[in-house]
Amino acid sequence: MARLSQRIADLRGSPVRAMLAVSQQPDMISFAGGLPDADSFSDLDIPAPPRDLLQYGPSEGEADLRVRIAAELQALGIDTDAERVIILSGSQQGVDLAAKLVIDPGSRVAVEQPAYLAALQVFRFFGADLQVLDRGEPAAGWAGAPPALAYVTPTFQNPTGACWTAAERRALAQACGTHGVILFEDDPYRDLVYDPCERRPVCANAAGASWIYQGSFSKTVAPGLRLGFLTASPDLHPHLLQLKQAADLHTNRFAQWSVLQILEHPGRAQRMARVADAYRRKRDLFAAALDRELGGLARWEVPAGGLFFWVRLNAGVDVAALHRRALERGVLFTPGEHFLVAPDAGEGGAMRLNFSAASPDRAARGLAILGELIRGG
Amino acid sequence: MARLSQRIADLRGSPVRAMLAVSQQPDMISFAGGLPDADSFSDLDIPAPPRDLLQYGPSEGEADLRVRIAAELQALGIDTDAERVIILSGSQQGVDLAAKLVIDPGSRVAVEQPAYLAALQVFRFFGADLQVLDRGEPAAGWAGAPPALAYVTPTFQNPTGACWTAAERRALAQACGTHGVILFEDDPYRDLVYDPCERRPVCANAAGASWIYQGSFSKTVAPGLRLGFLTASPDLHPHLLQLKQAADLHTNRFAQWSVLQILEHPGRAQRMARVADAYRRKRDLFAAALDRELGGLARWEVPAGGLFFWVRLNAGVDVAALHRRALERGVLFTPGEHFLVAPDAGEGGAMRLNFSAASPDRAARGLAILGELIRGG
Repeated sequence: MARLSQRIADLRGSPVRAMLAVSQQPDMISFAGGLPDADSFSDLDIPAPPRDLLQYGPSEGEADLRVRIAAELQALGIDTDAERVIILSGSQQGVDLAAKLVIDPGSRVAVEQPAYLAALQVFRFFGADLQVLDRGEPAAGWAGAPPALAYVTPTFQNPTGACWTAAERRALAQACGTHGVILFEDDPYRDLVYDPCERRPVCANAAGASWIYQGSFSKTVAPGLRLGFLTASPDLHPHLLQLKQAADLHTNRFAQWSVLQILEHPGRAQRMARVADAYRRKRDLFAAALDRELGGLARWEVPAGGLFFWVRLNAGVDVAALHRRALERGVLFTPGEHFLVAPDAGEGGAMRLNFSAASPDRAARGLAILGELIRGG
Repeated sequence: MARLSQRIADLRGSPVRAMLAVSQQPDMISFAGGLPDADSFSDLDIPAPPRDLLQYGPSEGEADLRVRIAAELQALGIDTDAERVIILSGSQQGVDLAAKLVIDPGSRVAVEQPAYLAALQVFRFFGADLQVLDRGEPAAGWAGAPPALAYVTPTFQNPTGACWTAAERRALAQACGTHGVILFEDDPYRDLVYDPCERRPVCANAAGASWIYQGSFSKTVAPGLRLGFLTASPDLHPHLLQLKQAADLHTNRFAQWSVLQILEHPGRAQRMARVADAYRRKRDLFAAALDRELGGLARWEVPAGGLFFWVRLNAGVDVAALHRRALERGVLFTPGEHFLVAPDAGEGGAMRLNFSAASPDRAARGLAILGELIRGG
């Protein structure tokens, strides 16, 4: 018998991954993943890359791309510069690097309830003791035993789509500073904005706290390129750069070059506005179909941005049974339990429904089936 | 003060990385890195990739690329299939995944002396207790307390260029099987072959042992694409796939597509023969310059493949001082100590000299300077 590490016992496959095979069956209506609408990148022009990018590159990423990203982060109020930007092979990699940086077995990590499941997976794998972060009172319970890390997605969160208020953002930054908690802000959805709301990064107020801020080009450019970035406070950055190098030496240079072309394209702002308009229309059609098909059976907020509705079912609905029976009818969603770190205080279960991947017609059909099953069950 | 994980205390920057900034000074003659000759990919035609690769892809990698790689691995005698091939974001990622799979603080890991420094870095970071593997008698000391993992690069090793005999390969596979040691074979240099020698993978004989075999396209195609692959015994593969997903979801799809085009190109074999011919010429010129400039001052074997000479200096030469003084003269090499896990039993220090990056003229000039400094010191 091969002797494996302790942490393998804590390794569970992602439920999203397990559902992926199912979701690729023809005619399956999938609300389960977080796939951008392929129409959103159908107009991207990716030329053949220059040949000098075939050689090894720097671990931190291409200098011109880092300069560009740093300027955009500064415009958001984040205190950084190009020297402190690290290009990632997708922002999932940033979760891995942050976990390596901070988490020993038993380390306390505060997360939202619910929270991004692939971050929970990584934190658990490194042995974290996960604790629920109260957005209204972030430092509750921190006196004496503060967590090592607070991980948050304050802008159009996955799975809830929620957006923190300015006061909530300030309170978290201050709590982290006061209690010596490393603030890790994951911000992949910020440009998928459909209604006005507060989006100033928490890290822009991180006076006194050590912090990591990361973003992604998977939603604004294309996920297949696997490109993200992070920046961090000066005390953390050198460690994260060493960890990046140890993880994969550096990120694919063609992807870096391709994204830079898109960032520098004069039509970029109009393109993002078109993408957001298209997603807003999809969100509105989805919300209307939810009202029609699930009204009275569940509660939800219409998200001001991002890719998901978080739908809380009325008490008495068996989500596992609904999931199974929906699948038989060709409809897939992600059960809410996968995003939880503690028993759910509210009544009833939840589903995460992605509205970006399916066409409006197919989404409406899928929601009608869910409504029928809930009523019939 | 931010509270960081225990493992950060064991994290050291790569000495190669630290030297990279220096090596990029104009006119520096660098023997320090492991850069392929850019001429080796100057003839590659990388077209613009198809647009449907912009969407998220599977964690294990593109199916057609995995089929192709599996067929080539089967031809080497490795018992695998496409389902058990995982595409990596460069083979450094495979080291990270294998370490996560196996290493807890204190886990014993057997490695060659010397061994690839960026693997040693990762193993140490995860808390491994590194032990020297004796190629002649691999199971020496394993009875009672076998290591969890044996990590080897039996074909044109970095840094020594050494190639294991068929008997040595069989002995290691058998020792791993007998003692329940996971065999991890790293094989990035196998196609850079200049003289006939044994190259059958150790994993091709791994009856009874759990094993991981990995390869890279950094030397045969281009490093900037960051593309590698691994395959593993059926007991380990599912864990490695979950770890890959947790690390970066999946590898850049354009890179996967680009490499597949090159693997399927009808001129591929001729191209590899040309690349090997060019490197053989460089190796021979380098060996002649070594004879001329360092004859009597050091000992080395001419490597039958790969990218490095391992040059053992005569007793009494201060390698650190030589390194410092060479740098002042514009010549860079990697001191041998970085590749060691235990005190060196032999006399004198060593240097790893890369012969692929510098032109023959500049290499000869650099070696003349080293010879002059050693004689003068």
